[in-house]
Amino acid sequence: MEQRDETASLISAGKVQGTNVYNTQGDNLGEVYDVMIDKRSGKIAYAVMSFGGFLGMGNNYHPLPWNTLKYDTRQEGYVVGLTKEQLERAPTIRRDENPAWGDRNYEQGIHDYYKAAPYWA
Amino acid sequence: MEQRDETASLISAGKVQGTNVYNTQGDNLGEVYDVMIDKRSGKIAYAVMSFGGFLGMGNNYHPLPWNTLKYDTRQEGYVVGLTKEQLERAPTIRRDENPAWGDRNYEQGIHDYYKAAPYWA
Repeated sequence: MEQRDETASLISAGKVQGTNVYNTQGDNLGEVYDVMIDKRSGKIAYAVMSFGGFLGMGNNYHPLPWNTLKYDTRQEGYVVGLTKEQLERAPTIRRDENPAWGDRNYEQGIHDYYKAAPYWA
Repeated sequence: MEQRDETASLISAGKVQGTNVYNTQGDNLGEVYDVMIDKRSGKIAYAVMSFGGFLGMGNNYHPLPWNTLKYDTRQEGYVVGLTKEQLERAPTIRRDENPAWGDRNYEQGIHDYYKAAPYWA
């Protein structure tokens, strides 16, 4: 473990970016493309997971509330408690689509889907 | 403004990485290399600012408590309230040095230097 990138208490955004995301069945769902930071609180609001593309082209994205991700040291990736089918119906950001970050209805809908506590509460 | 990367409320880590850092005199001090996330709270703990290198080689780093950075839209960069001389004496992570993240004495010292409230308080 490179201390520059990660210790028991801290992890760099650069290390999170590119980390695989699995469901509890062990299916590889995609990887973390980026994380979104709430400017007001300084808290991570979302991991934006890319999926379905090839060599960075044609990717779509799922915004995952940050508190839905658990890191699994064995798989060296994040685990989210959704089946592949549940994730297919999950809120999606299509390539070239601009998500309505800051629109509370839009963001509440994302959190409702994952039954996650909103980061702004 | 690309909504995917930034809105009034949210900003991606990818957008923060590479953003210039200035002091209040307008001197360019370096750029944000990465941000460190506190795993427990999900809060950004530090911006790690690189300086003094060339084409990514020979860089050293200053860990800046996240709450010391203010974004200035005019300069399109972060502003930190230190002179160049104050920053030269600031806590530094040298190339190939592993910072003692998680060591409370080390981290308190960083926050003391900037008179910043610790992210864990």
